[in-house]
Amino acid sequence: MKIGIITIGNELLSGFTIDRNSAWIGQKLLESGMKVHIRQTIQDDLGDIYDTLESMWKEWECDYIIVTGGLGPTVDDITVSTFLEYFDDKHEFDKEYWSMLKERFERLNFKMPNLNKNQAYRSKKGKMIENLVGTARGLHYKKGHASLFKNIKTIAKGGPKNTHFFALPGVPQEMKSMFTNYVLPLLEDELDSKMLCRSIRTTGVPESILQEKISDLIDLNKGKCDIAFLPHRMLGVDIRLTTQDKELLDNLLNSIVERIDKYVYGFDSDKLEGVVADLLIDSNTTIATAESCTAGMLSARLTDVPGSSKYFNGGIVCYSNQLKNELVNVKQKTLDKYGAVSEEIAHELAVNIAKKLNSEIGVGITGIAGPDGGTEEKPVGLVFVGISYKNNVYIKKYNLTPNRNINRELTVILCLNEIRKILENSK
Amino acid sequence: MKIGIITIGNELLSGFTIDRNSAWIGQKLLESGMKVHIRQTIQDDLGDIYDTLESMWKEWECDYIIVTGGLGPTVDDITVSTFLEYFDDKHEFDKEYWSMLKERFERLNFKMPNLNKNQAYRSKKGKMIENLVGTARGLHYKKGHASLFKNIKTIAKGGPKNTHFFALPGVPQEMKSMFTNYVLPLLEDELDSKMLCRSIRTTGVPESILQEKISDLIDLNKGKCDIAFLPHRMLGVDIRLTTQDKELLDNLLNSIVERIDKYVYGFDSDKLEGVVADLLIDSNTTIATAESCTAGMLSARLTDVPGSSKYFNGGIVCYSNQLKNELVNVKQKTLDKYGAVSEEIAHELAVNIAKKLNSEIGVGITGIAGPDGGTEEKPVGLVFVGISYKNNVYIKKYNLTPNRNINRELTVILCLNEIRKILENSK
Repeated sequence: MKIGIITIGNELLSGFTIDRNSAWIGQKLLESGMKVHIRQTIQDDLGDIYDTLESMWKEWECDYIIVTGGLGPTVDDITVSTFLEYFDDKHEFDKEYWSMLKERFERLNFKMPNLNKNQAYRSKKGKMIENLVGTARGLHYKKGHASLFKNIKTIAKGGPKNTHFFALPGVPQEMKSMFTNYVLPLLEDELDSKMLCRSIRTTGVPESILQEKISDLIDLNKGKCDIAFLPHRMLGVDIRLTTQDKELLDNLLNSIVERIDKYVYGFDSDKLEGVVADLLIDSNTTIATAESCTAGMLSARLTDVPGSSKYFNGGIVCYSNQLKNELVNVKQKTLDKYGAVSEEIAHELAVNIAKKLNSEIGVGITGIAGPDGGTEEKPVGLVFVGISYKNNVYIKKYNLTPNRNINRELTVILCLNEIRKILENSK
Repeated sequence: MKIGIITIGNELLSGFTIDRNSAWIGQKLLESGMKVHIRQTIQDDLGDIYDTLESMWKEWECDYIIVTGGLGPTVDDITVSTFLEYFDDKHEFDKEYWSMLKERFERLNFKMPNLNKNQAYRSKKGKMIENLVGTARGLHYKKGHASLFKNIKTIAKGGPKNTHFFALPGVPQEMKSMFTNYVLPLLEDELDSKMLCRSIRTTGVPESILQEKISDLIDLNKGKCDIAFLPHRMLGVDIRLTTQDKELLDNLLNSIVERIDKYVYGFDSDKLEGVVADLLIDSNTTIATAESCTAGMLSARLTDVPGSSKYFNGGIVCYSNQLKNELVNVKQKTLDKYGAVSEEIAHELAVNIAKKLNSEIGVGITGIAGPDGGTEEKPVGLVFVGISYKNNVYIKKYNLTPNRNINRELTVILCLNEIRKILENSK
């Protein structure tokens, strides 16, 4: 089943509006076991819309073409007129719908503008899709499948007879309502077998290393299960498995997790801070932070999770050396001898903050975020993380990037992941 | 100038990833006076990528085709091989780049997997685009413009001789870096008449009220300058002016700013925290924070700006009542009488943290972020912000939303904006 999406609107191309509609449609389809094959975004231009409808039908041989946008009442809404031209159709005024619209507006104490009259037309060849939350109705047309005109084999195999074309509004809640109530049931009806999908969420490892570790499993399941690597913005890679075979999916998921266990922090929609929160709550462990270069980012992330007061006691952002000394009792001698960005300071910060805030875990972070402040010996990107837990102090040294924001974000993720590993190992 | 964007990735089609890359590119192009004509999203599939390159070149006659995604080292990354096939090119191993990559991985304490070797190839016919923040290099090819093969008039008119093809990574910061440093300057060079674009950045006011205040200016400039209202996710509206007329732009910008002065925090790419940082530095003012419900988010934001140690002394995340008392010397009597979320506690936090951290400005934040912890008297979304400065204490009370994340983010923005107003008024 080949599905194409066309989204229409200059504001999408210029990036003023981010195209969340087609992402939403993609998710809904996947939940029902279907995949989008191609998506195209074009201007509010009759020629461009016409050409794209034709190419999705003819070149891409789509079975379903879903168009969103351009159904409103203003001059730049031309999807309806393009559909009429493409299907050589005419529309006629729908008195009944017009009275209904007028009544609806009156109930809201508005006088119906005449402009809306062009939303009260009814197609002769196509079907109107009711709009339960707005004024513009959608359109549904059928047209002989392109393969019928090219490929005899497809017909013999009982391939699709028609391509379905849907025109839906661009306003999210109207589009969603029409898609859920009209389009999706129609597609689900024609579906033979469902796609299943699971994600394994990893962090602290590049995607190439992950792939190396499971390359034989990839080869073994070629054609049976789709395995994709999805790197995130910061140090996280999801391994996504998509297949129709439930048993294969479960087995493969387990085999992969066995291989890369130490990098896996969760599944599907799990978040790193959520996983750490669960581990802290389950083990009845409290945590406190002393942050220098990340300046509160770790605390903020630890408290992103509702109910974080169960495990998070508090933190100190000790940006200056003076505050490291005054607020977190770091020894002046250590600062003088090793400098603020050092293993020794990360150690003292971790131990002292745990003690001061009466917490089981103490985290100390010190580093040179940049862009300034680096030296040859201690370059920008050098970060030390100290974690004290149960009489142990774990120290990690990182050489990150020249970029301030990346260094700060990476440090938080690396640190959360270390906390996760420590808690999992002590289970 | 016709620009096409191709974004590659199954995760985009399925909606797991929202296509922010192409929105970002659209915005950057518009800022430089260029518009995207068409955008297409396709699977990681050699045939599909090949066909789309060809159709963008041949049917859509694009002058610039920008492809993002599929440059990584894993099996599903096939953009490079498609480009090689499309341009009938071969690539050769680049020893020098490979040693550089290996060295970079070693600095992160990883052994470089052989898999990454496929990122160390160099094209023979195309140009490699350097990656300043990641491993995968981009590609740049030229090919005779499609119109040359079809349309004699275009040649006579001195139309474009070549279509440029760029392959950029899908990882946002890598794509952005390559686009800004390589692609954009190249496009800007070929541009004849530039669109000029300025943004007025406002916060703390709904877009409808802004529009009302300048509706006569909008009417007056219809057809001469495009005026768009761009609401952001959180409490901010940009007013974007686009025109080719420099004088008109400057005058209109000034007229608008005069009308809505108190809502304007900056222009173009100014950020609220950057504006606050400049005000702090210019007035030689230091700042310290005592955060409860925002738990370090304000400190983190204040230190997002390079050189923040000039004005930021530090902060305390006092999540529990005990820490408010022990670390920020909030009186137990005040806590007992008014509760932790109160005007009085915000006041004490602000005054005490300024004193304790020896800073001119002290900020105290206390609130109920939710989803739990609300009562009838003090519902979720109730937040108090206290700011002490020059013997004054400014207290703000907010009734925000039922959503934890939104409440925390909004509080930080509202608080930064208050600091900005206080500093501007005392200039």
